[in-house]
Amino acid sequence: MLYLTRRETFNAAHKLHIPEWSDQKNREVFGKCSNPNWHGHNYQLFVTVAGEPDPQLGFVMDAKKLSVIIKEEIIDDVDHANFNLDVSWFPKNLQPTTENMVFIFWQRIEQRVNEAGARLYSIRLQETENIYAEYFGPEGRK
Amino acid sequence: MLYLTRRETFNAAHKLHIPEWSDQKNREVFGKCSNPNWHGHNYQLFVTVAGEPDPQLGFVMDAKKLSVIIKEEIIDDVDHANFNLDVSWFPKNLQPTTENMVFIFWQRIEQRVNEAGARLYSIRLQETENIYAEYFGPEGRK
Amino acid sequence: MLYLTRRETFNAAHKLHIPEWSDQKNREVFGKCSNPNWHGHNYQLFVTVAGEPDPQLGFVMDAKKLSVIIKEEIIDDVDHANFNLDVSWFPKNLQPTTENMVFIFWQRIEQRVNEAGARLYSIRLQETENIYAEYFGPEGRK
Amino acid sequence: MLYLTRRETFNAAHKLHIPEWSDQKNREVFGKCSNPNWHGHNYQLFVTVAGEPDPQLGFVMDAKKLSVIIKEEIIDDVDHANFNLDVSWFPKNLQPTTENMVFIFWQRIEQRVNEAGARLYSIRLQETENIYAEYFGPEGRK
Amino acid sequence: MLYLTRRETFNAAHKLHIPEWSDQKNREVFGKCSNPNWHGHNYQLFVTVAGEPDPQLGFVMDAKKLSVIIKEEIIDDVDHANFNLDVSWFPKNLQPTTENMVFIFWQRIEQRVNEAGARLYSIRLQETENIYAEYFGPEGRK
Amino acid sequence: MLYLTRRETFNAAHKLHIPEWSDQKNREVFGKCSNPNWHGHNYQLFVTVAGEPDPQLGFVMDAKKLSVIIKEEIIDDVDHANFNLDVSWFPKNLQPTTENMVFIFWQRIEQRVNEAGARLYSIRLQETENIYAEYFGPEGRK
Repeated sequence: MLYLTRRETFNAAHKLHIPEWSDQKNREVFGKCSNPNWHGHNYQLFVTVAGEPDPQLGFVMDAKKLSVIIKEEIIDDVDHANFNLDVSWFPKNLQPTTENMVFIFWQRIEQRVNEAGARLYSIRLQETENIYAEYFGPEGRK
Repeated sequence: MLYLTRRETFNAAHKLHIPEWSDQKNREVFGKCSNPNWHGHNYQLFVTVAGEPDPQLGFVMDAKKLSVIIKEEIIDDVDHANFNLDVSWFPKNLQPTTENMVFIFWQRIEQRVNEAGARLYSIRLQETENIYAEYFGPEGRK
Repeated sequence: MLYLTRRETFNAAHKLHIPEWSDQKNREVFGKCSNPNWHGHNYQLFVTVAGEPDPQLGFVMDAKKLSVIIKEEIIDDVDHANFNLDVSWFPKNLQPTTENMVFIFWQRIEQRVNEAGARLYSIRLQETENIYAEYFGPEGRK
Repeated sequence: MLYLTRRETFNAAHKLHIPEWSDQKNREVFGKCSNPNWHGHNYQLFVTVAGEPDPQLGFVMDAKKLSVIIKEEIIDDVDHANFNLDVSWFPKNLQPTTENMVFIFWQRIEQRVNEAGARLYSIRLQETENIYAEYFGPEGRK
Repeated sequence: MLYLTRRETFNAAHKLHIPEWSDQKNREVFGKCSNPNWHGHNYQLFVTVAGEPDPQLGFVMDAKKLSVIIKEEIIDDVDHANFNLDVSWFPKNLQPTTENMVFIFWQRIEQRVNEAGARLYSIRLQETENIYAEYFGPEGRK
Repeated sequence: MLYLTRRETFNAAHKLHIPEWSDQKNREVFGKCSNPNWHGHNYQLFVTVAGEPDPQLGFVMDAKKLSVIIKEEIIDDVDHANFNLDVSWFPKNLQPTTENMVFIFWQRIEQRVNEAGARLYSIRLQETENIYAEYFGPEGRK
């Protein structure tokens, strides 16, 4: 079993806030991340797939095909977008935290990655140089 | 003459658009950067000051004091903010491009840096891993 | 189960040497790292916690609270300090290697992280661009 | 159990192509990576070993000894070399993909690492800023 | 006057050797860089243009247009290529050193950059994490 | 005229303090950098030389020769050393600030670089990811 990781990048705006709460309470809980007028990040997305390399090609999965899947299912919709307003498939009742993003990104690409012959192993998202989240799927890290 | 550079970071939202133009024309000129609902970046700001090191202290300028000036005059207002909506001192008639940011940032800190005993030499702003702008003041690179 | 990682940095001096040994033997075993007058590093510390995101907040753990714990329990004592001389809670009979640091750091923060509602998953410490160590707790990588 | 990682770098040329195929078919499958006249990369190799730190020395393994093993068994043969033509121990029937490299590198160093008192845990190879592969040995990630 | 820099990347093979010399003399002068079977690098190319930002758009030059020029004139020909064999416009009598590359790259894009309304200011090429070259045009750094 | 830059790294301990001052006054002026028991950094040193590339070799200066000069004159003495105690040629009356280091490093290598056929152009020293200093020699940036 070998693991192949592909990095993609996107730039997006978001804010963390709960509409039922006052601005003040949002500020107390989410700090500057609740700024009503949004802020944003250069996100780095790392998708890892697992499998046996094809004996002839030497690929767990063609990295270019993996890139196409990530772009079509995620990047095209989130790059230069607002996570709270523009991303139709991001649930409105979920805060666009790094944790929730990797969870939802998993749903977006798992099937297509698996159909391409590899197994989706993990999705890691770097929000700033100081923070990243990682998800290994519903069965967890194996 | 020696040069000392201090890096600070901030995360902000912005968009490039000219209100008098249609969304379509904004899209043609500014591409995805014109998305009406904003996008954002992790900005890295590099401020360089020039001077002779103090013979006793060995400092062109105390890097901590330089950091305080940058934070009070720039970072506190732009971090986790929306450049088009939240930054009172950023001219409304200027697009918040990397080029215009370094130009305006220069006005914000030049006097305080010079009063602290050094000379502001340059301001460089990294917007993504692929793009940065730099400004050397009204008299240019010397 | 999701994983959230927070990076903190500190700059410290240390040396590797066994007092019972001659300088020459220390040199033979530890090389330049045994220089009697110390040397130092810019350390990068990555703390990973695991848990289910809070359904309302979307946080495995508030990254700012995690940062406070790391700073109060580790960074405040080791930043701009000498690992052999200044860090009261670092055992005198342990060499301040990267391996021993992550092991001791684990003891410092495990309880507070767990009380904050997440589970401490791993501590990784980057000593130079070429070396890092990682620890997953007494029960190992799961 | 603690984990120590050592990074080494090398610069090499390679191409992906199957001699029995036409240039056109190689191009269709491998894209630009099949350019007959080769291309190349700055590779970053990360080798992780696992073990209990020596109670006196604090080392899972002396990082300098690990570096010597990696250099003698891998780097000396692949640095500034052509993976398809110059590396005698790289099987001619394997494509020099990142996946196959970490697999073969494992065979090169496992025994020497284990004889040095640690356990080889993983080999990760970064080919570009966007792609890396990792291998955890025949028994997989534990 | 403001300065805008755009980064592009490419992966290429090359070798340094003088055909009139023996392999041994090439080895003495160029070291491992003379390996007859080539080696390669992940190159990072930084192109800086200078100018006054357009008062309405805020651009010294549209970074996307700059990217197109660099790609059409340089990257499309050198990416996944062999500098000694594949790049028709790279003079056969010049060694493909980092210095000569930035010099020749300047000729490739100067006119198109200037026609686009900015002034080409510098070209910097990072060959490894330890080496880069920079060129400021025939009139030098101003 | 072309510019070639070579990076070298070293890890060192230092402190900023004026012996005639009390610990308290040192603390007021230098902050944590005055810790009596030292602290340390991973320094990155960038040396830039200028010249015309040799028409046959394509080198402004052989980067390996430049590396040897930097190592023999600087790195061998400062790596894994204490700047205040171990570096015989660093003036005792100068604080080991980043600014003073690049100034003194210039004296160490200028003559040997110039004898090797290039002109020393600048020395830049990165102390942390947030601070670096640069020196262009007694005649300044040209």
